[in-house]
Amino acid sequence: MNSVSPVQRAKMVNAFDPASVSGLSDSTKRSVQRRTSLLGPAYRLFYNEPVEVKRGTGVLLYDSDGNEYLDAYNNVVSVGHCHPRVVDAVGEQMRTLCTHTRYIQDSILDFAEDLLGTFGGRIEHVMFTCTGSEANDLAFRIAKHRTGKSGIIITDEAYHGNSDLTASFSPSLGRYSRLGAWVRRVPAPDPYRVPIDDMGEWMAEQVSAQIRDLERRGEGLAGFIADSLFSSDGIFAHPTTLLAPVIDVVHEAGGLFIADEVQSGFGRTGEAIWGYQRHGIAPDIVTMGKPMGNGFPVAAVAMTSDAVEGFGRDVRYFNTFGGNTVAIAAAQAVLDVVRDERLQENAHRVGTMIRDGFAALATRHELIGDVRGAGLYVGVEMVEDRETKKPDAAAAAAIVNGLRARRVLISATGPAGNVLKIRPPLVFSDAHVDRLLSETEAVMASL
Amino acid sequence: MNSVSPVQRAKMVNAFDPASVSGLSDSTKRSVQRRTSLLGPAYRLFYNEPVEVKRGTGVLLYDSDGNEYLDAYNNVVSVGHCHPRVVDAVGEQMRTLCTHTRYIQDSILDFAEDLLGTFGGRIEHVMFTCTGSEANDLAFRIAKHRTGKSGIIITDEAYHGNSDLTASFSPSLGRYSRLGAWVRRVPAPDPYRVPIDDMGEWMAEQVSAQIRDLERRGEGLAGFIADSLFSSDGIFAHPTTLLAPVIDVVHEAGGLFIADEVQSGFGRTGEAIWGYQRHGIAPDIVTMGKPMGNGFPVAAVAMTSDAVEGFGRDVRYFNTFGGNTVAIAAAQAVLDVVRDERLQENAHRVGTMIRDGFAALATRHELIGDVRGAGLYVGVEMVEDRETKKPDAAAAAAIVNGLRARRVLISATGPAGNVLKIRPPLVFSDAHVDRLLSETEAVMASL
Repeated sequence: MNSVSPVQRAKMVNAFDPASVSGLSDSTKRSVQRRTSLLGPAYRLFYNEPVEVKRGTGVLLYDSDGNEYLDAYNNVVSVGHCHPRVVDAVGEQMRTLCTHTRYIQDSILDFAEDLLGTFGGRIEHVMFTCTGSEANDLAFRIAKHRTGKSGIIITDEAYHGNSDLTASFSPSLGRYSRLGAWVRRVPAPDPYRVPIDDMGEWMAEQVSAQIRDLERRGEGLAGFIADSLFSSDGIFAHPTTLLAPVIDVVHEAGGLFIADEVQSGFGRTGEAIWGYQRHGIAPDIVTMGKPMGNGFPVAAVAMTSDAVEGFGRDVRYFNTFGGNTVAIAAAQAVLDVVRDERLQENAHRVGTMIRDGFAALATRHELIGDVRGAGLYVGVEMVEDRETKKPDAAAAAAIVNGLRARRVLISATGPAGNVLKIRPPLVFSDAHVDRLLSETEAVMASL
Repeated sequence: MNSVSPVQRAKMVNAFDPASVSGLSDSTKRSVQRRTSLLGPAYRLFYNEPVEVKRGTGVLLYDSDGNEYLDAYNNVVSVGHCHPRVVDAVGEQMRTLCTHTRYIQDSILDFAEDLLGTFGGRIEHVMFTCTGSEANDLAFRIAKHRTGKSGIIITDEAYHGNSDLTASFSPSLGRYSRLGAWVRRVPAPDPYRVPIDDMGEWMAEQVSAQIRDLERRGEGLAGFIADSLFSSDGIFAHPTTLLAPVIDVVHEAGGLFIADEVQSGFGRTGEAIWGYQRHGIAPDIVTMGKPMGNGFPVAAVAMTSDAVEGFGRDVRYFNTFGGNTVAIAAAQAVLDVVRDERLQENAHRVGTMIRDGFAALATRHELIGDVRGAGLYVGVEMVEDRETKKPDAAAAAAIVNGLRARRVLISATGPAGNVLKIRPPLVFSDAHVDRLLSETEAVMASL
């Protein structure tokens, strides 16, 4: 025990600190106290003043008093809160049959075929789980089985899941969450702070050095895993020449390249359906989750036949709810909507508007050190000084909480917590961009 | 590579072997081939002739030709396939809001309060995951964090999940799925084969010996985990004096007792809402899953405040879909239906009828060596000879597949695969019992 508060120990950007209830309304206070009492100490709320949500539609959320919030944060409800096609698909399938994958059903096969068509390259099979954590856990189990090795290489502030295995390679959970002895980290490819001409070559060298260390310790390399947006590292969407040299050194060492598409998949980046495709690489394993069912728990691991052959022979895999009939109905509806409503294209167009808007804000506000991202995953880095680039987490927190007070929801990320994280549902419109930008300008003017 | 088929290597009772497609209909063959091609080698179907399911209601399933199957197997759809209250609750919440736990919502707190009221004892908090595997994975992470130790004790053929961590303590996945070095096994409490007067004392001695070994190796004891029905060990519901002596030695060694209620929870045993309550013990952690949302992916870990205090302070836990608004709506509807329709009482009454019926069958069929279980979790053990009690897996498989041909669905379990596993939805009625028993008698007469 010590006097450091839980929120400070278990590091989390934009977490509400239950010790700070004094300024809150009575009903919020009561809810916070009930949560602590019922759900225990491991749960966190967002914002200095937590938000109550009661209903949602599109990119709008409402509390029980009917106050409207612009949701510029939630990437799970990628096709919009309560999209009628997803609601109907889930409802219809719930009324018909909700069961597992050990009976013959066409819908899971039709969806698998549809999904597999989006990868290209060498990806041949897909296996269903319920969460992105389960997908990354399974992916690394498969990689360990395929290679007979145990080592994994990640970026410095990576997040890949909440299972025992994936938490062991998720340093962004903070220093009290122990990393595995078989985990090696490389610096995130941060072109704002580490301006290197050939960042791909540089990153491949970093990865090579860690591979040699893993081999020297007898662990060897099972795999390299990255989210191509490096979202918890601070959102680095460029350069896109980065991962090709990395996959080469990983393959030379006999390891598998795992593309974690839990955040960057399903059109989020605007430029491709999968984030890794922006880098022109062909991974061995692709994992996906969050937006896959628009909130219905469904996730998946897709892989080459070579990667899973031995695992399938020796171990088998069954996930009771994973890929059940309703999960598949939700996932099919989401994939259909992403295509039919051209949401990848919208993400590209509207995401560019957001970045342009923040770039314009940056001409008036020295606090903004960098604006970056791809599609509807935007990072805006706050610094105390543009020369030293010293991170300004307090400014980021003030903007996040200032926007929350004006009923616009975003968050922050990065090792220093100073990067605004803006990743709304993909149905964000021009008018929503205007509202986001004008509210941000108002908050920044008041700092 | 070798010539042993995948199904034989990755041991699974009642798995369809894709090498045996010759006798199947063209459409089944095509589905099997599509599955192998799209989902890869790790998936398994049930039965020698896999079953197609298209829709379900209550305890009945239908294929696309309209053939009706009596479902005496599926424990996930515990309140019956497509129960209207669950369907409506999920539909209504899907239309309103589907979002995560970092906003203030009353429904999760109301449900947590309701659920926590069912445990009694020292259980104070509940945390939500999506699957039973995630629940057991989190439970053991919490136990390791609380104790600072790494060892776990399980029964010989236990199954606790499909994550890297939980698969490492799930020997029923077969010999090619590696157990952790920090895992120790004790024999299952099998009163049919190991008739010991005080089985609780005997089991506590077995556990003590393994604790000493874990301590001698420097692992130490983090926890003991068991499903109180010992379902994958062969279904041992009695004696119920078993676990009290075990929890005492676990606590003496500083370990936590984890009650895995994924199979035995929510009234399944007929005698209590939770299986461990039949043993009169107060576990430190309770995990639950399968029937919790009647197929909607929702699961949970409930625990004492003491168990989770340090974990919550140091690590935090967030599960994107775990306990989201729709998961909570599904779980609340299920808990309400279990109570309102008195399904625990029904499980007790109807389960007794099934066991009595099989006991009567046993007077005419020497193959039946033992009939056991609690509530609607029934085990019927097939033996070649009642004196030697030699397991007869072939007879069990013949009955499972014979019933499938007569459109009654059950399966088999146990280390030798010779124990019929009968665990229908809890809405099973007297007429369904008659149908199950008369079809079983017909199959046995034809053996």
